[in-house]
Amino acid sequence: MNSPPFTLVNGVPADSVAVTDRGLAYGDGLFETVQLRLGRPLLLNLHLARLRLGCERLALDAPALLTDLQSDLAQLAQLCNLQDYGVLKILITRGSGGRGYLPVTGMSCTRILMLSVMPDYPDHPAEAGVRVRWCDMTLALNPRLAGIKHLNRLEQVLARSEWNDPSIREGLLCDTEGHVVEGTMSNLLWVSAGILYAPLLDRCGVAGVIRTRLLVLAAGAGIAIVEGRFAKSELEQADEVMLCNSLIDIWPVVALGNRHWPTGPVTRQLQSLLAEDYLAC
Amino acid sequence: MNSPPFTLVNGVPADSVAVTDRGLAYGDGLFETVQLRLGRPLLLNLHLARLRLGCERLALDAPALLTDLQSDLAQLAQLCNLQDYGVLKILITRGSGGRGYLPVTGMSCTRILMLSVMPDYPDHPAEAGVRVRWCDMTLALNPRLAGIKHLNRLEQVLARSEWNDPSIREGLLCDTEGHVVEGTMSNLLWVSAGILYAPLLDRCGVAGVIRTRLLVLAAGAGIAIVEGRFAKSELEQADEVMLCNSLIDIWPVVALGNRHWPTGPVTRQLQSLLAEDYLAC
Repeated sequence: MNSPPFTLVNGVPADSVAVTDRGLAYGDGLFETVQLRLGRPLLLNLHLARLRLGCERLALDAPALLTDLQSDLAQLAQLCNLQDYGVLKILITRGSGGRGYLPVTGMSCTRILMLSVMPDYPDHPAEAGVRVRWCDMTLALNPRLAGIKHLNRLEQVLARSEWNDPSIREGLLCDTEGHVVEGTMSNLLWVSAGILYAPLLDRCGVAGVIRTRLLVLAAGAGIAIVEGRFAKSELEQADEVMLCNSLIDIWPVVALGNRHWPTGPVTRQLQSLLAEDYLAC
Repeated sequence: MNSPPFTLVNGVPADSVAVTDRGLAYGDGLFETVQLRLGRPLLLNLHLARLRLGCERLALDAPALLTDLQSDLAQLAQLCNLQDYGVLKILITRGSGGRGYLPVTGMSCTRILMLSVMPDYPDHPAEAGVRVRWCDMTLALNPRLAGIKHLNRLEQVLARSEWNDPSIREGLLCDTEGHVVEGTMSNLLWVSAGILYAPLLDRCGVAGVIRTRLLVLAAGAGIAIVEGRFAKSELEQADEVMLCNSLIDIWPVVALGNRHWPTGPVTRQLQSLLAEDYLAC
């Protein structure tokens, strides 16, 4: 299970891109991080749906791109044993060329598919829970870029650079108006009096695939959901707090500063629902 | 004067970077666009000063980087006839590696230097002036990223995609609170009753090298300067409006929607001062 990373660029094994690629020049592109389990990409349709939304926002040719990606995925499965890997990163850029910011029409997207092994979490955070902290960095508001997983990620890089203590697994971010949004690499949900709270991601943040799926699963299980804008204090007073993303699944939050939580029943229920869903998807 | 582009990556002629480079993955880096005139990089010290500020903001090792860049520049001058080129683009990234957003300490920056010919402006916009428009895109507020020329440029790409009419040379942007900031690829200055107005760039925008230099030159010439936050109407009521950047120098704005301006005396004075300054710098 320690296979070396493998990369396909525009359908061909490669490990570099042109210096003139607009992904490098401007972060002009999108990415997805997909979990592979026994060679199967989990929730692939949701990842591709978000990619399609991102393409629409950035005016990239989604139908052509998704067709090419399907062929890349088939190619990957021929060249590698997908069961040896845990993570598939898909990175799309507008391609190479154009002078300055104006995209040239008819430009051909760059597609990069990277296989790597699953990160190791020897302390079993999904069971034991994790400590988190607040970040000083705030997320800027831009509805045109909110929700999609684009390549402009300096806010996340700088936020994640705010601490080095390995016992703190995630940093939580507010937007510039003080509303709680998400973690640096995860979405954030919490439970108060049996209601599941989820910050709106219409002005900043990434609409994570696991978050999207969990809200559907929770609704199906009869859990009341409130999406909205919330202050830090509302999260701090919650009964349960959890993080989710496509690689960690769900991590219960057990400490934030001086506030401590046990791992609550709704968190465990959502972990079970997600595990069952993975078997079906 | 139609030499092919030439690129140096980490001191070696090359035309690609690793797919794992953080410049591509997250826009985790900086760039500068320097005008070359008769082989001389104009205002190089100001470009390097902004790069140093960017390094400090992103926690990149500025002294090591600047030393390496000096050696790259010497190398370029050996390999190419700089007089055949008009533009030097310098692109710096945090380098390759690290899992997720957290930068690995001791990572080595990627340095890319690209030479290309000067863009052609057959309609002589510096003399004749240009038409501009307002963009719908608004610039998000993030003081930690404001002023520096980082690689997260999707706002500019999307703003520049708002129009195709080649007779409109630039789009003007406000921040999310409605204050005028800059153009998609230029800074914006205007004159009202003899005072030179410049939008503050402490919450968003790029602090352009020409803008910085022009404010010094204007002050030296006894022109009163006000930096602040201004509404669209204040620009629209101005006596003179101009754009500046390192390649266009200064373009007078002669039309914005139904508003028309002649090219005013302060704009011409600043063009002369900059031209003289180029001879001396």
